[in-house]
Amino acid sequence: MGDGTDTRFTRRTLIGSAAAGAAVAGLSGAAPRARAATAGKTPKQVDVAVVGAGLAGLTAARAIAAAGRSVIVLEARDRAGGRTWNRPITGGSYIDAGAEFVGPTQDRIKALAQAVGVETFPTYNSGNNVYWKDGTRLTYPASGPTGIAPPDPAYLPDIAQIVQKLDTMATEIDVKAPWQAREAVEWDSETFYTWLKANEINPDFMRLAATATDAVFGQEPRDLSLLYAVFYIAASGNETNQGTFERNFQTAEGAQQERFVGGSQLISIRVASALGSRVVLNAPVQRIAQNATGAEVNASGVNVSARLVIVAIPPALAARIDYEPLLPALRDQLTQRAPMGSYAKVDAVYDRPFWRTEGLTGQAVSVNGPVRVTFDSTPKEGSPGVLLGFIGGTDARTWYGLPAEQRRQMVLDNLANYFGESARNPLQYVENRWADERFSRGDPVAGLPPGVLLDFGTALRAPVGRIHWAGTETSDFWVGYMDGAVRSGERAAKEVLAELS
Amino acid sequence: MGDGTDTRFTRRTLIGSAAAGAAVAGLSGAAPRARAATAGKTPKQVDVAVVGAGLAGLTAARAIAAAGRSVIVLEARDRAGGRTWNRPITGGSYIDAGAEFVGPTQDRIKALAQAVGVETFPTYNSGNNVYWKDGTRLTYPASGPTGIAPPDPAYLPDIAQIVQKLDTMATEIDVKAPWQAREAVEWDSETFYTWLKANEINPDFMRLAATATDAVFGQEPRDLSLLYAVFYIAASGNETNQGTFERNFQTAEGAQQERFVGGSQLISIRVASALGSRVVLNAPVQRIAQNATGAEVNASGVNVSARLVIVAIPPALAARIDYEPLLPALRDQLTQRAPMGSYAKVDAVYDRPFWRTEGLTGQAVSVNGPVRVTFDSTPKEGSPGVLLGFIGGTDARTWYGLPAEQRRQMVLDNLANYFGESARNPLQYVENRWADERFSRGDPVAGLPPGVLLDFGTALRAPVGRIHWAGTETSDFWVGYMDGAVRSGERAAKEVLAELS
Repeated sequence: MGDGTDTRFTRRTLIGSAAAGAAVAGLSGAAPRARAATAGKTPKQVDVAVVGAGLAGLTAARAIAAAGRSVIVLEARDRAGGRTWNRPITGGSYIDAGAEFVGPTQDRIKALAQAVGVETFPTYNSGNNVYWKDGTRLTYPASGPTGIAPPDPAYLPDIAQIVQKLDTMATEIDVKAPWQAREAVEWDSETFYTWLKANEINPDFMRLAATATDAVFGQEPRDLSLLYAVFYIAASGNETNQGTFERNFQTAEGAQQERFVGGSQLISIRVASALGSRVVLNAPVQRIAQNATGAEVNASGVNVSARLVIVAIPPALAARIDYEPLLPALRDQLTQRAPMGSYAKVDAVYDRPFWRTEGLTGQAVSVNGPVRVTFDSTPKEGSPGVLLGFIGGTDARTWYGLPAEQRRQMVLDNLANYFGESARNPLQYVENRWADERFSRGDPVAGLPPGVLLDFGTALRAPVGRIHWAGTETSDFWVGYMDGAVRSGERAAKEVLAELS
Repeated sequence: MGDGTDTRFTRRTLIGSAAAGAAVAGLSGAAPRARAATAGKTPKQVDVAVVGAGLAGLTAARAIAAAGRSVIVLEARDRAGGRTWNRPITGGSYIDAGAEFVGPTQDRIKALAQAVGVETFPTYNSGNNVYWKDGTRLTYPASGPTGIAPPDPAYLPDIAQIVQKLDTMATEIDVKAPWQAREAVEWDSETFYTWLKANEINPDFMRLAATATDAVFGQEPRDLSLLYAVFYIAASGNETNQGTFERNFQTAEGAQQERFVGGSQLISIRVASALGSRVVLNAPVQRIAQNATGAEVNASGVNVSARLVIVAIPPALAARIDYEPLLPALRDQLTQRAPMGSYAKVDAVYDRPFWRTEGLTGQAVSVNGPVRVTFDSTPKEGSPGVLLGFIGGTDARTWYGLPAEQRRQMVLDNLANYFGESARNPLQYVENRWADERFSRGDPVAGLPPGVLLDFGTALRAPVGRIHWAGTETSDFWVGYMDGAVRSGERAAKEVLAELS
């Protein structure tokens, strides 16, 4: 990067290779290393300490610095970007190992990207998608009449009416307080599964529904509260556009419409570079002690005194920080009830995107896992060709622990089913296993089971003394997406700036 | 205690008093203190390091020591006993601040108690129980024809048929692998709420059902998987007696039948005393690093090298230890999905158990909280009189954060409704708020939402390298009870002794 970007924030070495025929090792992360290089620059006193240099924390820090307040960002990893990561692959290219796509109404991530000079390009979406069910393969136009629905006549009626019902229910949700919806108690008392079951026409439809929740949440329909699912749909919009199920799932006009040139992590790298020495890497926060005038934040030897703190990591990780005094029971117990999704992104790298020449988009939807949803993840330049596969929910939980060769084989079998035998021989095969990342423990987002939004929802955002909360899980719109992370960072920055003024 | 018991293991000072008219403060626990007095005695090398000196960890350590193996127990608190605690009250007496009752088929806790010379006495159960609903108070004989059912004609048919159905379902569960039950997938796909709703006769019955889950789990029916609820019932027995709902709820012939003379914690204190310097207090374990020959266990300055480790704390707390290498994703994600109950035990202390002279057992069941279930918790000697109230689920979550005076008022209002105006003026009022305890984060037990047993159940007990798991949450029988803790400790000891031999 010859643009003045501080490469310090990009670091993360690729270990292993396609030759190993297996998962890329080393993802589980070495124990935090000393920060000899950065510790010396650490300010002892700041207005605001931010925990986490993902998009939420960096957005907050950027706003705080812009307002002329002093800020330090303490990041556990050896890089910025959180759940975004430009992971190097063979031939000098990279993949988006984490969050990748962006679409309409995701205004805040787009504004941030624009501000730091990161552009978007359209996700490849020309030609036919593939639908796979129990050995039967169908193709259908990506821009065809069935929209997001694969052309399975057994399922089309269900898709139409289920989507319409969910979209209607979503209109009843105030995304700032879903627990106040008229039917919140009933909706948070059942799983998404039981609601689907009660509303489906074809009893086999549940298999496709699981494909959807696996890909979006890394959770099964039974793992999720109906209220949370409806809230998530309502959140798939912005202040002027009602959230819809379709916007969540679509490529064109949906959340998968575009990608970032240079990779999603580039946004964070640029923001972190601008913040410079305000961002301290390899500094996992272990303790936050509030006192009468501020808070002491300890991160493996880096000690910061701050007037206010923003914790910009998921609830399940925020649980692992030691707070003094203890957080209120409601907040602590929330963090016991917001499990990260069970998920993996797998990438198969080829010399070229061979499926394009066969008139395929690279997008597949399948009811047979482990890979049930795929996308063309080729870089803007058009090479190498990259097929991205999502593995989620029970598929991921089973697949995680299998021998490496078996995992690879299962994935390539899926890809060959969807895109032909050429898919069997990638130049490189990469597993992005965020559940094995010490500072993620799962992805893409926390998925809430029944009863949590209702009884603990207020604790998602309510500040506790000098501690404010950010992270995509705390957003109103686009929870679980990069846009939600940015929105949460903007909100948290507003909160602390108001308190400081 | 003039019996040679080491008083070191009993310590925990009562702070605050009835005069404060409020919660006993200080329960949230000061930051762990240095262990200057004990650190010097710490063996550097042991066969087994046990994390947690609750009943599970102490039982395991006792068996390991008896087998001639070296063992050390690292306990975070300044006392032994975990979720049991003889908390001092006014006049030199004490209350069971945590686990209190014991009953038929709880053979292992009884055997352990007998081994260390702790006896039982019957829970006071003579006369009438009280049932309260929306201002209507009914009394009914504790040993009457309706059994555990309060005599509400609106609910009696529901109680009869729901209990019978649940007991029948429970016969299909193998408590060692509930996820393998024939209907496990369906049962783990819905909440206990939706099952009750589908099976109830009177739509108002759910209020009484919530009283039951609040008191047993500290969770609402919507918070719990149906499979988990049925498993819990199946677990309310032993190898020769099928678990039943009634045994869970009953006083006579049930889990509330007896109490321990000298308090439940006395068992742990005796076991810890016998283990002597093998038990190290004020040693919260922060890190467990496995290597080729063993594991290094770090507890705030106490460093132990062990061949094997037993982690005998609830999953949500085990999540807060740093493991090197990281645990497999399935195990880590289990710990994100096993939330502790939202619960409180409140005790009102009077000069005498005045309700006895009015022909009341001190037991009440109510559909109006916060206190929905009460017991006579008077010590064996008969004075002072102690009324114990359970607050659980949504009631607890709401009540936790209210001002102290309001909390007290709500509790005493409940008690006065059930037992008359005399209940309004206790000598002392004590709140046992385990959700505010740094080393508990809730009680009485982890309650599993839908999908967890099915996809993560195997990770409850499966050893990870040199680490074995104990704690009542990992038991087959009497999960959530002292008996389950003891059983889990016995099982874990067996595992490590087999591996060491």
